[in-house]
Amino acid sequence: MFFEGSEKKFEVIFSGVDLRSLGLDFYRNLVSKSGAEILSQVSNEECDAFLLSESSLFVWKDRLLMITCGKTTLIHSLSFLIERVGIEKLESLIFQRKNEYYSHLQETRFVDDLKILKETIDGTYLLFGNEHEHHNCLFHYNKPYKPIEDDKTFELLMYDISETSSDFLIREGHSPEEIRSFFDFERILPGFEINDHVFEPYGYSMNAINGDRYCTMHVTPQKHCSYVSFETNIAIEGNFMADILKILVPESFDIMAFDQDIKNVIPVGYSDRMKFSEKLDCGYHVEFGHYFQRNNSAKRPRKI
Amino acid sequence: MFFEGSEKKFEVIFSGVDLRSLGLDFYRNLVSKSGAEILSQVSNEECDAFLLSESSLFVWKDRLLMITCGKTTLIHSLSFLIERVGIEKLESLIFQRKNEYYSHLQETRFVDDLKILKETIDGTYLLFGNEHEHHNCLFHYNKPYKPIEDDKTFELLMYDISETSSDFLIREGHSPEEIRSFFDFERILPGFEINDHVFEPYGYSMNAINGDRYCTMHVTPQKHCSYVSFETNIAIEGNFMADILKILVPESFDIMAFDQDIKNVIPVGYSDRMKFSEKLDCGYHVEFGHYFQRNNSAKRPRKI
Repeated sequence: MFFEGSEKKFEVIFSGVDLRSLGLDFYRNLVSKSGAEILSQVSNEECDAFLLSESSLFVWKDRLLMITCGKTTLIHSLSFLIERVGIEKLESLIFQRKNEYYSHLQETRFVDDLKILKETIDGTYLLFGNEHEHHNCLFHYNKPYKPIEDDKTFELLMYDISETSSDFLIREGHSPEEIRSFFDFERILPGFEINDHVFEPYGYSMNAINGDRYCTMHVTPQKHCSYVSFETNIAIEGNFMADILKILVPESFDIMAFDQDIKNVIPVGYSDRMKFSEKLDCGYHVEFGHYFQRNNSAKRPRKI
Repeated sequence: MFFEGSEKKFEVIFSGVDLRSLGLDFYRNLVSKSGAEILSQVSNEECDAFLLSESSLFVWKDRLLMITCGKTTLIHSLSFLIERVGIEKLESLIFQRKNEYYSHLQETRFVDDLKILKETIDGTYLLFGNEHEHHNCLFHYNKPYKPIEDDKTFELLMYDISETSSDFLIREGHSPEEIRSFFDFERILPGFEINDHVFEPYGYSMNAINGDRYCTMHVTPQKHCSYVSFETNIAIEGNFMADILKILVPESFDIMAFDQDIKNVIPVGYSDRMKFSEKLDCGYHVEFGHYFQRNNSAKRPRKI
């Protein structure tokens, strides 16, 4: 059973509006534009975190992060949001799309999304990675912006997790607690409030918040096309990345980092296939890399 | 300007029929089933080699190799051929399809092709490579077959050729002789009769035959999605591969080899990203690998 785990994502920053005051109905509507729905919510003083049928939505007073996977059309949620809040209040926009496993199953391609964006927004399109391999398409608003000091984003996108972890995660009927304990979230994410969902027959999504910090993880454990994404604004020095890689042992992974230094975070045993780096005109410094486990022996092809 | 260089390919072996006697009209018809056409032909005592609007067709007395690229539907040519010659005469069939850059632009996917094949042919489907990266799908007929001794195939699929070679190859108005001389075919392929075609505004296809030996090369030189394929049944010890890699200096390449030992052919400077190996039930030993230039410095993303 194939599920397209590869995500689309946008993060916007507005001025002169309190995004949290827009209310649950507004956000239900926003999410529905992508073809997804809100499953549950946790909130603290800084942030509302929504778990979606396909990934996650985080809302702070001045910023909003939305991530969707599957066959969703995130671009429509973004257009809706900007139209409703007003483009004159937009300070920063970054819209990203990871290359999909099966692009022919998607309703739109990144170039289609761009056409819609460019009708209202003056922006720049950058391709991190190689067109014929793993890559991440990024569009940003061409408005000078100075990120605040702790505005750091780190994405870890993992492919082909170990047989042990896949075997565990595709077992049906897990409780959320069993999966939390498998990932040892209590130790890795101390102080975070966790909200999660186990999908049928398998698959797992998790949002976690602590003040204005967030983490989100989405697990597509199917054999032969397993994919797990982890994203956070925690500083990477915390070493949660090594912990997660130790548990899932992916055959390969991408990193996409905004204003984070990734030089010393690649664990022993992984080599880089490619690295891309750019200081965006809109203020952020972005690093993209693909890493893989060196393995000198040949594998056998998969019989289908 | 994007062109899908990634190829589909089949090689069939029949008994009790002289394929060369089927005539030009038959082959025009066969090729048209894929949505392609015959541009020109060279022949010798062993083989007819047709250059197509999208790749190549080689016909020997008992075997036939057809390769097409772009948006062609090679599966329909294969179905037509088997129906006309008769499945009872089929001794061996290998149908391959390289993952495409843009699968959403293709009329069919490999799984669609398989459905058609499986209606008439009992076969096995193998996936060489990772689903989310470079891979080569292979279907073979489940009939025991013993390849003759010099039935060796070697495919070299090159990505992101050097700027120098791309600059030269996208220059418009080249004569075939200029491109032959760029590749130094006279030295690399001594004794071969060459038939080639320069496309508008650029792009190049070449067939070469010498007795029952063939080579074929197809060049999609566009920047940012350049792709060059070279395929032959010459034994790899000839070292033509090192010569071609020296000229094109691709950032990465795949090898797909049938009954050829590829252990010692990877030039210094390239590392393996993955290797797959399998002895097929139908007799051939297949090796697949993806190799890339190690480069420790980060690149800049491409602005589009």
